[in-house]
Amino acid sequence: MKPIRIGILGLGTVGQSVARALLERRDLLARSAGAPLVLQRAVVRDLDKPRAIPREQLTTEIARVTEADDIDVVVELMGGLEPARTVIEAALSRGKSVVTANKRVVSWHGPSLLSLAAKKGAELRYEAAVGGGIPLIAPLLDDLAANRLLELRAIINGTTNYILTRMAAGDTLDVALAEAQRLGYAEADPSDDVDAVDAADKLAILVRHAFGLTVPPREIFRQGLRGLDPRDIAYGREFGYALKLLALARRGTNGIEARVHPAFVPIAHPLARIDGAQNAVHVVGDLCGPVMFSGQGAGGDATASAVLADLLHVSRRMALGDPAPTVRDFGPEPKLAPLAEARTRCYFRLAVEDQPGVFAQVTQVLAQQSIGLASVLQREPGKMGSAEVVLLTYAAPEAALASAEEQLARLSCVRAVRARIRVEGGDSGGAA
Amino acid sequence: MKPIRIGILGLGTVGQSVARALLERRDLLARSAGAPLVLQRAVVRDLDKPRAIPREQLTTEIARVTEADDIDVVVELMGGLEPARTVIEAALSRGKSVVTANKRVVSWHGPSLLSLAAKKGAELRYEAAVGGGIPLIAPLLDDLAANRLLELRAIINGTTNYILTRMAAGDTLDVALAEAQRLGYAEADPSDDVDAVDAADKLAILVRHAFGLTVPPREIFRQGLRGLDPRDIAYGREFGYALKLLALARRGTNGIEARVHPAFVPIAHPLARIDGAQNAVHVVGDLCGPVMFSGQGAGGDATASAVLADLLHVSRRMALGDPAPTVRDFGPEPKLAPLAEARTRCYFRLAVEDQPGVFAQVTQVLAQQSIGLASVLQREPGKMGSAEVVLLTYAAPEAALASAEEQLARLSCVRAVRARIRVEGGDSGGAA
Repeated sequence: MKPIRIGILGLGTVGQSVARALLERRDLLARSAGAPLVLQRAVVRDLDKPRAIPREQLTTEIARVTEADDIDVVVELMGGLEPARTVIEAALSRGKSVVTANKRVVSWHGPSLLSLAAKKGAELRYEAAVGGGIPLIAPLLDDLAANRLLELRAIINGTTNYILTRMAAGDTLDVALAEAQRLGYAEADPSDDVDAVDAADKLAILVRHAFGLTVPPREIFRQGLRGLDPRDIAYGREFGYALKLLALARRGTNGIEARVHPAFVPIAHPLARIDGAQNAVHVVGDLCGPVMFSGQGAGGDATASAVLADLLHVSRRMALGDPAPTVRDFGPEPKLAPLAEARTRCYFRLAVEDQPGVFAQVTQVLAQQSIGLASVLQREPGKMGSAEVVLLTYAAPEAALASAEEQLARLSCVRAVRARIRVEGGDSGGAA
Repeated sequence: MKPIRIGILGLGTVGQSVARALLERRDLLARSAGAPLVLQRAVVRDLDKPRAIPREQLTTEIARVTEADDIDVVVELMGGLEPARTVIEAALSRGKSVVTANKRVVSWHGPSLLSLAAKKGAELRYEAAVGGGIPLIAPLLDDLAANRLLELRAIINGTTNYILTRMAAGDTLDVALAEAQRLGYAEADPSDDVDAVDAADKLAILVRHAFGLTVPPREIFRQGLRGLDPRDIAYGREFGYALKLLALARRGTNGIEARVHPAFVPIAHPLARIDGAQNAVHVVGDLCGPVMFSGQGAGGDATASAVLADLLHVSRRMALGDPAPTVRDFGPEPKLAPLAEARTRCYFRLAVEDQPGVFAQVTQVLAQQSIGLASVLQREPGKMGSAEVVLLTYAAPEAALASAEEQLARLSCVRAVRARIRVEGGDSGGAA
């Protein structure tokens, strides 16, 4: 059998795992692909760093992978938008299939790169871009393809899930973040994770495959962890909820809702039990009903598992001499629904003056916005001299909830709206 | 585009769901397949039963599907071993690809039918045979293909999981079973489910795809629900466990362990939270780590979702003119490990005389078999005049545990060994 010759761009944690697997599990991979997979060459920045890969297979020249006649498939593991995008484009332009774990490039440029691939008879795959080692893209695209998907809710950023798990145990955001950094889960500059940039990128990829909606990640509403207080997690638990950074998409009457933000999830919901750095995607199809996939969302070997799965898909096809698949037709493109129309239950925490009449004023604001009140918790004044009121509303449009927040903040008896957190998947009056 | 012409054998619940989808979601399916999917003909027993499918598309003659020139793909949904097996063989022999949901046929005759398919240039797919609407076969075979799988633990019989969920709430087996029958989860003769025959069939299919081991279902150790008492579930909960009918396979030093039996699972393990008629498969790969798939294991629409996924796979390939894939080479066939060598923790419930020295005798038996004692619960005598002792051991070989059970039953102070239940996935001394 003619071997499939592979070039890797980038030998970081994932790249090294992929390279090691190609060298160490040749038989397993060859049997699965129907042809030997050969690590032909890898591009690195520093040739002298000690590595398990023989020096003669290393190069610093990207073109020796993207433009070389002896490379059949390119594995891009450089990360970041550029030069990764340009490099993928260069490889596809030469008809080389590309496997990548690059969520940034795929979320921003996936559609145009897929078109380019199809035009050149090449294939672009990116199972590892979302959910690390969990099979997601292929199941959504192929195994659930007969369904109209109704809803997708995902925990797709392990760093923030780890931080929230720590905060649920009482840590502040700063302490939990420092611990995440110490463990290598979070970067020195953690904003991509903490501000939900990473999760929005991944949601854009999922939304395209689940709902056929192509949306630039910047158009997805996104709110990160900043400002969250462990007290909100504790209050939420009293109401029967766990706090998660949820990436959510839902088929609505006015298009596809897509947003990423902290959300309270009922404790009985399987997503509520996804703790630590784990990832999970929960989808509801009109035929299959609810299906959940969970596992390790990051890590060298877990991500390599997904990269290698893609490599095997491409290699199997090449070994059989089959042409690259055409671009999947998702049908009429739906619209992104406006956030203002999204209906959710909502949790408010207010710091209020410890005086009579507070309740009447607060409930009047909600009534004006036609927001039903489901539960109330009131705590006696603490050190700050102000009492706390925690409200849980019935489902209402985002626009009404945002107006209510503004008006509550302006009440003389309200010192501050300390938190407004959406609730997803409640069973009474909820949006689920 | 040339249409893919489909013949369905059997219009029961699943068959009707598949037929309805083919008629009602033509655009969605055609876009995904790259060619129109046409329901050409369906074989039924009774032509006069009212159905949504036009009468002229119905026939009672199987050959009008399996031997007809105007059928490209055959969907077998008759269930049971015969005539289903013969019919699948007939279709494959004529080079027609077959999609089936038939776990019995696939578990007993999968390998020979796959060989026949490959010889005839046809394809045999059976995603719906295990786990209903949950994508399992394709993810195991393709998306986790780079892994050496280490362990697979599954809840793959919704009926028994429903019964155990009821028993956890205090129902006896008989009451829970009657309720399952009333809801249509269990058959009038429930032995296939209750005696774990169905789960063993499905495990045989999973074991082949996860570990490359071809094992006839009858060689898989299987123990069903008979004899289980809700009290054992209650005691187990005190130790921190939930009781599940677990289908389990594990790579051991002497081959692949494969068995189906009730097992205590730590409450914190994700499988412990799979309740009601749900299914879940939890696998551990050497690269991907733990991954879990969960969802609806049965039901017309959920199973149709998997059947249609297979139909789309076959149709996509035919639309591109690609040949059928060759039989996957799983490499050197491993052995089925002997049950006697399987190591598990174990739960015993003994009815004992309420007299001094019981404990010394019981612990001596365990010590003789080199079985460590992890926990003990003793209850005062109840109505039966005998006291109960509940033991939880450390991990020990099955052979030693079985000997201990026999010897305990023979002690004069022991009236009966009321229960012996294996514990899977404990974190101290466990086999996990």
